[in-house]
Amino acid sequence: MTDQSPNGSEFDIIKRYFMPLAADDKAALGLLDDAAVLDVPLGHKLVVTTDALVAGVHFLQSLSPQDIAHKVVGVNLSDLAAMGAYPRAVFLAAQFPSDILESWIAAFAEGLGAALAGSGATLLGGDTVTTPGPLAFTLTALGFAPKRHILTRSGAKVGDDLYVTGTIGDGALGLLCLTGKLPADAYLAKRYARPNARFEFAQALALGSLATACIDISDGLVADVGHICETSNVAASIEAQRVPLSDSARDLIKADKTLMKTVLTGGDDYELAFTAAPDHALAIEALAVEKRLRVTRIGKIHKGAPKAQAIDEIGRPMDLGHGGYVHL
Amino acid sequence: MTDQSPNGSEFDIIKRYFMPLAADDKAALGLLDDAAVLDVPLGHKLVVTTDALVAGVHFLQSLSPQDIAHKVVGVNLSDLAAMGAYPRAVFLAAQFPSDILESWIAAFAEGLGAALAGSGATLLGGDTVTTPGPLAFTLTALGFAPKRHILTRSGAKVGDDLYVTGTIGDGALGLLCLTGKLPADAYLAKRYARPNARFEFAQALALGSLATACIDISDGLVADVGHICETSNVAASIEAQRVPLSDSARDLIKADKTLMKTVLTGGDDYELAFTAAPDHALAIEALAVEKRLRVTRIGKIHKGAPKAQAIDEIGRPMDLGHGGYVHL
Repeated sequence: MTDQSPNGSEFDIIKRYFMPLAADDKAALGLLDDAAVLDVPLGHKLVVTTDALVAGVHFLQSLSPQDIAHKVVGVNLSDLAAMGAYPRAVFLAAQFPSDILESWIAAFAEGLGAALAGSGATLLGGDTVTTPGPLAFTLTALGFAPKRHILTRSGAKVGDDLYVTGTIGDGALGLLCLTGKLPADAYLAKRYARPNARFEFAQALALGSLATACIDISDGLVADVGHICETSNVAASIEAQRVPLSDSARDLIKADKTLMKTVLTGGDDYELAFTAAPDHALAIEALAVEKRLRVTRIGKIHKGAPKAQAIDEIGRPMDLGHGGYVHL
Repeated sequence: MTDQSPNGSEFDIIKRYFMPLAADDKAALGLLDDAAVLDVPLGHKLVVTTDALVAGVHFLQSLSPQDIAHKVVGVNLSDLAAMGAYPRAVFLAAQFPSDILESWIAAFAEGLGAALAGSGATLLGGDTVTTPGPLAFTLTALGFAPKRHILTRSGAKVGDDLYVTGTIGDGALGLLCLTGKLPADAYLAKRYARPNARFEFAQALALGSLATACIDISDGLVADVGHICETSNVAASIEAQRVPLSDSARDLIKADKTLMKTVLTGGDDYELAFTAAPDHALAIEALAVEKRLRVTRIGKIHKGAPKAQAIDEIGRPMDLGHGGYVHL
């Protein structure tokens, strides 16, 4: 499809800003053909995920174009990470408002290249259209995972330990900082704007058959562990005081204890939550050291109604209200 | 990502309307996991294409939800057809305005199922979000093509014949009918709203190594043959009087000869244009009979500046002005 935008035709925009990102990848056919053509390595399955992000709904319009590119890429690579897949390609459908500046698109493309660097994925195609609505991006990410070494949400077993990577709550607190509801904090703002998908750690977890279930935390810790529970038909308890916090998050919660609810339910973490048999605890600890990633045991899998329950320091269930994630 | 829409959560919408479309396909993991997992058949390459369609830009908002679903699917499967690929899966990112009716979504999902039926492709995942902007869909379509039997735009050779499938111009004329600029015509309106991707014919062309280059006609016949010329570094002449017309199109042109320009440049055909060596003419004719598809030789490939030129009945170059495609 071709569109006339004030910045020149779709083809010019693609040629100038997006084609260089695919320059060295033969699968893209130079972004000039109708579709990209890829080889799938023997013994691997293809893993595919799609996320749509709309300005003002899924990300703050006020973010820099580079930040938005990192966010769009991070959210999608995080879904591949949750399956233990190796990122291979992304396809970007960009909806640009007609008054967007060419310099904005240039900065976005630069951010896209930076966000993909080191992931193994290349931009292999897409579509650039003009919209009378808000800026929006749909990214489809493709990865490969060795057969029989794919992580899913459905394997959690009663007695498993529950773990998370990194620190939790930074993304949701960062959004509150960026919207002026909390004092400015560069660390938290960056954690919101530029999520780091944990695909390297997840690949190793999958290859070692260490985890029974895995999900990336996008909707909020309690909601996403709840998704594992529903799909695996188990219950989970999350010990709130074990949930790992960044220094910035810890300081904020010291001043306002109710922010702990934001940490547990806020979403936008893009860390992994996963379950594992207790006899893999040492192997998981060793892997965390090897990958230089904080990994914390935060709870257990039980028999019971399929839901995740946060509990306080003396074992009481916490009332988190809605418990899910409402965007912005 | 989860959104609150007036029609219930994203999860409810997916569960009620979109999950049934994937019910029998194990690759979808019931649309419940972070990503879909697929096997790629041995000896095949993976072919991937993405198109974004925005209401009021790429399709008439006034189309029925079923028609819009057919349009979204047809446009994407047509890109797979242009490569000779077998459709396997689609991933849909739907941006619904917050005031959309649940009955609209139900009818759209029904149309989606109907449009995919018989194509070999299943809905394997996606994302459903709420937007303050217009209704928009991004579809990513995946297909497989046997190695060494993939059609591209880049192989056209001097001396090749130029062919098209079906009839040309119906989509663009249909749009004029639907917008009241031409009298209502149910046949042309349907050709605009429900394009039939020619993947079966293209698969046979590719398997038989009959074509040197292929493209689907989305931007308009002259523009898209021009894309073959640019990528193959050849020139093409299109004999306007050979371009196949439907009865409806022929009647309209009889009354207003200037509509021939719409036929040649209008776009939205989703037929194939392809080039082939003259000694394959009989095999192509036989294939057209076998597949019950009209296939017409409309021109030749020449040495020269990489562009497509329409010529009139006495061999004069036609001035088609812009020559490309401006949406709606």
